[in-house]
Amino acid sequence: MASTPHLKRSPSRSHDRDYAPYLEAAWGFKNHWYPALFSHELPEGSLRGVVIAGHEVALRRAKGKVYGLADQCIHRGVKISARQMCLNDEHLTCWYHGFCYGLEDGVLKTIVGSPRDPLIGRVKIRTYPLEERGGIIFVFIGDEDYRPVPPLTADLPIRITDDPNPTPHLLDENLFMCGVHGLAKSNWRLGAENAFDPGHVLIHWDNAIVAATDSFIPLGFHPTSPDSVKIIDVPDGPKGIMNMYNTDTFEIVTENPVARIKSRGSQHHYVRTSFYLPGCLLVEHWPLPGMAIYGWYVPTDDRHHEYWDVAIARCNSEEERKDLQFKHEKMFKPLHFEDFYSNDIFAREAMQRYYDRQDGWHGEQLCELDSSIITWRKLASHYNRGIQEPPDWATDRG
Amino acid sequence: MASTPHLKRSPSRSHDRDYAPYLEAAWGFKNHWYPALFSHELPEGSLRGVVIAGHEVALRRAKGKVYGLADQCIHRGVKISARQMCLNDEHLTCWYHGFCYGLEDGVLKTIVGSPRDPLIGRVKIRTYPLEERGGIIFVFIGDEDYRPVPPLTADLPIRITDDPNPTPHLLDENLFMCGVHGLAKSNWRLGAENAFDPGHVLIHWDNAIVAATDSFIPLGFHPTSPDSVKIIDVPDGPKGIMNMYNTDTFEIVTENPVARIKSRGSQHHYVRTSFYLPGCLLVEHWPLPGMAIYGWYVPTDDRHHEYWDVAIARCNSEEERKDLQFKHEKMFKPLHFEDFYSNDIFAREAMQRYYDRQDGWHGEQLCELDSSIITWRKLASHYNRGIQEPPDWATDRG
Amino acid sequence: MASTPHLKRSPSRSHDRDYAPYLEAAWGFKNHWYPALFSHELPEGSLRGVVIAGHEVALRRAKGKVYGLADQCIHRGVKISARQMCLNDEHLTCWYHGFCYGLEDGVLKTIVGSPRDPLIGRVKIRTYPLEERGGIIFVFIGDEDYRPVPPLTADLPIRITDDPNPTPHLLDENLFMCGVHGLAKSNWRLGAENAFDPGHVLIHWDNAIVAATDSFIPLGFHPTSPDSVKIIDVPDGPKGIMNMYNTDTFEIVTENPVARIKSRGSQHHYVRTSFYLPGCLLVEHWPLPGMAIYGWYVPTDDRHHEYWDVAIARCNSEEERKDLQFKHEKMFKPLHFEDFYSNDIFAREAMQRYYDRQDGWHGEQLCELDSSIITWRKLASHYNRGIQEPPDWATDRG
Repeated sequence: MASTPHLKRSPSRSHDRDYAPYLEAAWGFKNHWYPALFSHELPEGSLRGVVIAGHEVALRRAKGKVYGLADQCIHRGVKISARQMCLNDEHLTCWYHGFCYGLEDGVLKTIVGSPRDPLIGRVKIRTYPLEERGGIIFVFIGDEDYRPVPPLTADLPIRITDDPNPTPHLLDENLFMCGVHGLAKSNWRLGAENAFDPGHVLIHWDNAIVAATDSFIPLGFHPTSPDSVKIIDVPDGPKGIMNMYNTDTFEIVTENPVARIKSRGSQHHYVRTSFYLPGCLLVEHWPLPGMAIYGWYVPTDDRHHEYWDVAIARCNSEEERKDLQFKHEKMFKPLHFEDFYSNDIFAREAMQRYYDRQDGWHGEQLCELDSSIITWRKLASHYNRGIQEPPDWATDRG
Repeated sequence: MASTPHLKRSPSRSHDRDYAPYLEAAWGFKNHWYPALFSHELPEGSLRGVVIAGHEVALRRAKGKVYGLADQCIHRGVKISARQMCLNDEHLTCWYHGFCYGLEDGVLKTIVGSPRDPLIGRVKIRTYPLEERGGIIFVFIGDEDYRPVPPLTADLPIRITDDPNPTPHLLDENLFMCGVHGLAKSNWRLGAENAFDPGHVLIHWDNAIVAATDSFIPLGFHPTSPDSVKIIDVPDGPKGIMNMYNTDTFEIVTENPVARIKSRGSQHHYVRTSFYLPGCLLVEHWPLPGMAIYGWYVPTDDRHHEYWDVAIARCNSEEERKDLQFKHEKMFKPLHFEDFYSNDIFAREAMQRYYDRQDGWHGEQLCELDSSIITWRKLASHYNRGIQEPPDWATDRG
Repeated sequence: MASTPHLKRSPSRSHDRDYAPYLEAAWGFKNHWYPALFSHELPEGSLRGVVIAGHEVALRRAKGKVYGLADQCIHRGVKISARQMCLNDEHLTCWYHGFCYGLEDGVLKTIVGSPRDPLIGRVKIRTYPLEERGGIIFVFIGDEDYRPVPPLTADLPIRITDDPNPTPHLLDENLFMCGVHGLAKSNWRLGAENAFDPGHVLIHWDNAIVAATDSFIPLGFHPTSPDSVKIIDVPDGPKGIMNMYNTDTFEIVTENPVARIKSRGSQHHYVRTSFYLPGCLLVEHWPLPGMAIYGWYVPTDDRHHEYWDVAIARCNSEEERKDLQFKHEKMFKPLHFEDFYSNDIFAREAMQRYYDRQDGWHGEQLCELDSSIITWRKLASHYNRGIQEPPDWATDRG
């Protein structure tokens, strides 16, 4: 085997022992809340399937309420959400032979063509806890018997308090929200680590939104103190890390004469990132001051994740809503959600082969820019509620 | 491994022992006749390759007669049918270096650029028994030394006699025939079982041909007696099963108040399905009374099958032929072969992952609708002429 | 397992022992020179990645000179050439976090956002020897410590001397050159063996360039003497084989009455092929008398190769250059590089499954036409400078 040759190994290798559970979490952490769909993606009476950490979940809205059940019929194993057959408001009905499962309990209530079948009432599919908050349907993914189910807020960012003009929280009233989600071809951890990486700003150096607004973008945030990364550990609440860019624990790198590059942009504004279990990013004051970005990196399988990128802003009037909608359509969508964000997806996918096939988790050469990432790996290893096992359909894949 | 959770296992599991050979037949049953091409697909002088149960067969028509030979040159292993090089009426000629094999015996007769080569006359490729009947070229797939080769009729449906207006047989004179074949992404057994499944009518409940003709479609055929499925066992002839929909051994389910669905359609007409080794469906009186559908589910490899769907009707005059051709173009083709049949392909492919990766053959939860399928599995296990081994090219697939 | 049945094995099997190293060389031979890019494909200041025998090499031109470095950043393993970030003329800079490697020595010179990082100066990526000659950038692929690096000329065809009108050599002055390269879906050895195979002329029998010029094409070149294939063994220079078509050691087959085919074309002109380690073809007097074709079959991975097909002609004036450019655009490109050459790519890819999955290397039935191929296999087994090991990213592929 040829391998990437080095003069020497960096000290990063010694970190491995500190976050071994993280290295095992190719399929994500279980017993956590994950976003599944925007509310508007599941209108009344409809049915959609999602895959989260290998769990296939059929989401169905009936009489306004959202239900989540295992998305596979026990009869011949087809995906129930592959076709919509919504006959009533009480059942999730399989389109193939009409197996009808109770939305509340998953129990087989009838079979369309075999109404007196002995199977009826004696088999069930599992149900998943759901929360619909802030325009997003969240599902609790993990062990069927995990109790108690923690509150959704324990898996969301903290409420910002150390800022004279704090950004809003997703669960606040009177918000404007816009965003996207989609599939990226990389493990979720590569998505997550890119999200709050103090060194990844370089890929945004020349982005259109930066050039158009003449924003100042550093070449990197260089940590200069152990306090640069703050641990967030709220009892029974969020666990995360925060890059303290608003303190002198980070050096803002603006010039590298050896590489012959200087920062551009004259408009400075304060941005800060924090990251929470099971994989939720908060960016304060982006894409505009006073707004916030929420991002998620939801494991699909071990080689794909669903990225979420959501912007929220306070909105107290119809006039403000119209103004934010205009900004969304003409600026946030083309310049942030499309152009800017595509650079992040590119970078996450570019790492995939190394970590999937070349044992990058042990071969990587981390540098001083990576202290936030190491802190996150340790925190996630310590506070996660379990490592997700692969599903049975993943066993013999090529 | 996460697995589909159940309150209890249905009794279906105990059936496994009764049809173990069927569960081994991922590549199909060997030493049987399979359809390869419609006659019109192989004009005089042409060459085409087919793959059946892992056997790659080159079909060539010369002086009217059809020949079938192994579709791989012994020299450098290329597929002979990949390019047509038909130099004469006696040989199958490989396009690469001109290895010429006798159409009758497969023996190497010459090499175009090496006419005195010692290999000539000393090596051969295998030949396959062929029958061209009823507008279809059938090939006998299996062991090269299997003797005697049974008659084609032993692998076709029986001639219908218990009907005052019996539908025609494929080998009858004076028929109109139309149909399609194509590749489906599922194991052939999932195709076969869907074909005659008394519970699968639900997927046709709202099809255009049903709505357009106001045909009555039950929600399911519920077997009420062990006599509902008749075993067909003709000495030296067809082996199959017949769903006795024309007797009181089936309950026609028209309403399910728990699921809140009722049958639609006011036009009732009698339809019956039967299924024969190695995988041939007969539907009597469909798509119109007096007509018949023949269907085949021909293994390609262990994950694909070639579906065949062929309609036949009696036709005694040019006027009748024109009328049937009109019906084919304006009704059978758009409404049956395309819209209606696409629902069956969808269902067959929807089962594939469960049976391929999740051990669905043992995990499935069969119900009372499935008694025909269980009877077929047992019959096929008992009467097949051998289980096809995988070809060498299938060994290290991803 | 079903296998291709034969009456008997040909004597080809006994050859296996004579070229065992060749059979191991799925990833090519190492410590040889391979073409990477045409010079015009790498303009000043640009960066491009190539994959040769599993080695990923970033090619960068700065101040006119071409540099080759390992195309993977040691930090997070991304491909450096995936995005161009050329900040200066001294570094290869990774686009993700700005790791800057010295073009001459591969040492990490700075990190854009972490200018005082302890990693700087202490790690490196490997560099590759390069030669830019005759309009082509060649890279020496193999062991990092292989010494001495042999001259490029040792891996190119010999200079032709036994011809009253010898064709030019690639490294001559005053040449016109045109050509293509691209990816073929077959192992490089199948590409190579097709290139000089005296029996493969049959696939060109009916090509447009042959028909348009009424050129005589034999049905095959049948060797009649052990001297038909000459071994080329220049001390410290090229090692290869030459088909001596210009001697009476080959019978030109013009007719095969058993197959009923005759050669066509009235314009005879002398063409000769020779083939050199590590995989370089020379065709003298093609596509026109006085010109030469150079071909390479560069391993990419074990299932793909980069084919190169380059025509050269003497060119001593601007008028001659314009004339050759006209011929290139109107004849060589459409008729040779596209139509004619596509037949060769087709044939090479048609062999791939047999040799990749069906153990064709041992099952093949070579005939008398294949004596050149056997001679090449033995020569390559003897004179190669090492068998390339697979890269680490190839280990768990499906």
